[in-house]
Amino acid sequence: MEAGTLLSGAASVAAVLPAGGSGERLGSATPKQFCALLGRPLISYTVRALERINWISDIVVVVSLENIETMKSIIEKYGHKRITVVEGGMTRHRSIFNGLKIFPESKLSSCPLQKPEVVIIHDAVRPFVEEDILLKVVLAAKEHGAAGAIRPLVSTVVASSADGSLDHSLERARYRASEMPQAFLFDIIYQAYHQCSDYDLDYGTECLHLALKYCKTNAKLIEGSPDLWKVTYKRDLYAAESIIKDNLSQQVCVTTDMKEDAVQFGFLLHETLKSEVKQVKGISVFLCKNDNHLQNIFLGQCYNFICINAEKSDIKETQQLVDILENSRISVLHPVVLISVHLNVSENMSFRSGMEELAGIKEFAREVKKKNILVYGLLIHYNKGQIVLTRRTIDEGRKRR
Amino acid sequence: MEAGTLLSGAASVAAVLPAGGSGERLGSATPKQFCALLGRPLISYTVRALERINWISDIVVVVSLENIETMKSIIEKYGHKRITVVEGGMTRHRSIFNGLKIFPESKLSSCPLQKPEVVIIHDAVRPFVEEDILLKVVLAAKEHGAAGAIRPLVSTVVASSADGSLDHSLERARYRASEMPQAFLFDIIYQAYHQCSDYDLDYGTECLHLALKYCKTNAKLIEGSPDLWKVTYKRDLYAAESIIKDNLSQQVCVTTDMKEDAVQFGFLLHETLKSEVKQVKGISVFLCKNDNHLQNIFLGQCYNFICINAEKSDIKETQQLVDILENSRISVLHPVVLISVHLNVSENMSFRSGMEELAGIKEFAREVKKKNILVYGLLIHYNKGQIVLTRRTIDEGRKRR
Repeated sequence: MEAGTLLSGAASVAAVLPAGGSGERLGSATPKQFCALLGRPLISYTVRALERINWISDIVVVVSLENIETMKSIIEKYGHKRITVVEGGMTRHRSIFNGLKIFPESKLSSCPLQKPEVVIIHDAVRPFVEEDILLKVVLAAKEHGAAGAIRPLVSTVVASSADGSLDHSLERARYRASEMPQAFLFDIIYQAYHQCSDYDLDYGTECLHLALKYCKTNAKLIEGSPDLWKVTYKRDLYAAESIIKDNLSQQVCVTTDMKEDAVQFGFLLHETLKSEVKQVKGISVFLCKNDNHLQNIFLGQCYNFICINAEKSDIKETQQLVDILENSRISVLHPVVLISVHLNVSENMSFRSGMEELAGIKEFAREVKKKNILVYGLLIHYNKGQIVLTRRTIDEGRKRR
Repeated sequence: MEAGTLLSGAASVAAVLPAGGSGERLGSATPKQFCALLGRPLISYTVRALERINWISDIVVVVSLENIETMKSIIEKYGHKRITVVEGGMTRHRSIFNGLKIFPESKLSSCPLQKPEVVIIHDAVRPFVEEDILLKVVLAAKEHGAAGAIRPLVSTVVASSADGSLDHSLERARYRASEMPQAFLFDIIYQAYHQCSDYDLDYGTECLHLALKYCKTNAKLIEGSPDLWKVTYKRDLYAAESIIKDNLSQQVCVTTDMKEDAVQFGFLLHETLKSEVKQVKGISVFLCKNDNHLQNIFLGQCYNFICINAEKSDIKETQQLVDILENSRISVLHPVVLISVHLNVSENMSFRSGMEELAGIKEFAREVKKKNILVYGLLIHYNKGQIVLTRRTIDEGRKRR
């Protein structure tokens, strides 16, 4: 994989997620990192965004004492791995420092954590962080000692005088908003925290500033995407929830076995999806157990599946896909929708008797619903001649565009 | 009214809304100010927010040449009043300047606009501006010559060096984000635009800065609410739509005539709403035509009405409320939901015959649906003894809390 190649050698990477905030700007009793988005706490999305990146070895989540049990139950419920929960301090900087202190100076047999070469610091309330920007800040930190994501300023920044009047405005183009993620050579940021003053720890907020002030390290600034924004106000929770809904419906995966009818039908369905439903990305795979390709689709957050079964009453392929879905544990995070399509190629069979033969899927659907996998059966009377016609129609439609 | 009193004397106020932006940060072909929220363009919400304030005499909307017809059709469709559409310039400052130039130096018989004492400048893409902050910036502008809304910074602001590394971070507490609305003595901002350089007009973005640089006017900075934020990215459209949905369902108005049964039932319903549906603000009014109180409720953006009719088959009160709603024209902006409740106090009548007598409401509902008013009929068998019991239950429930 590209990321693995770029991070060559023994570069080990860990991440620290400060999540001790009280969420006072949100106007809610629940700190924003624990607010539910589609029923799941915001912090679980952020943890998942880091966890699915295999070159991040450990994720340290720093929460206030009263939220340690909440955090542990979130990790348990959503099956998060490689997470260590650490008690936070009174301020953001003290919490991050606590998170860094958990890594031992030298290899200890009693501690499963190992001091990383590079440490990522990311906010618990920025759930949409992508591997791309994480890799960029990590590589830049390896080279420059420190790096952080930035964004253009949305508003002009002004300084006010003592009486609350405008003193001066900053020239917007010269400045940037410092966002997260940031990454540091572990020794640099650790040393900076060790040397910095109580004033810094109590009133500062910016890690890049500490690395500059105490280690003379000028962080590399890297332009990030708008998705890096910090969930701060109630409107941001609304926005985040809408983005998650969008993401969940953006991909559909069509799976088939290798049988001719199923493959042909799957191909036509895929083509139709591609041409008719523009905003949806279709993926087609052949269903072979433990398929790496399918695993990558799960990591790509696909939650919609159409499974083509060549036999009208056989749910073997659907069962196989459900097994793979279960093993991938993605349905722990969100409901998975699976449409089990059954082809009826015999021309004489009535719709009613076809439905009766497919009745077994009802019981199966009831069972797997408990695992958050929603199976719907669909019986299609399949006339090859007609379908080929449809395919031709699609081709003609394309030419006209 | 308070605002009228505070704005005593002949202080005239107009507003300029620059809306010439291309929305490139949104990643959409439609400029963000014309993107639809619940089917209605964003700019119509912002225009409405200003238009419902009666001490703003004129609203000048500045749009690019290619959007003038679009803007005019929005004004027509949503019945906006006191709006003048002006063609924008190549940049934000040039557009605002064009908007200011439309006010004549002296009273002209050919121009319906009159030069205001104070001019508000507000972004077309900040739809949730409230009267409170508008009044504050206008009063401060009268006193100080200029004033603008500010917000705390969400992110640390950094300056980068030529090689893209961190040069320094700003101390977050010392700076603020400059937001909108802003207000100016007309002569000050007009003079500032007249004197400023082409560089300012082409590369500047901040009106407060021009007033300071060219008129030595230190604007008063006024802390605004989070709702003042600027719709910039796609996520902001999601957030805005959710906020609008929230606002639409936050108020319900219970109306009755003066008949005893209706009044008693309305009172009980109001009490129940108050205690059972916490997030909803209930308002009760007696229905008298052209009631000022009711007009204020429309201005307060109430879109849900429950009309209590004392007679089981008479829709007189409902018809009267529909007339008032139609005249207020609020249903042009959003669908209005009106539940027409009919009380059946005779104990012996069957449900079926009650429904038959109420059948006339169906035809009525079909008619007014064309005006975006959705009428639903509800027949309630009303036993006074039972209702009193319910009321007692509510009282007891309260004591337990």
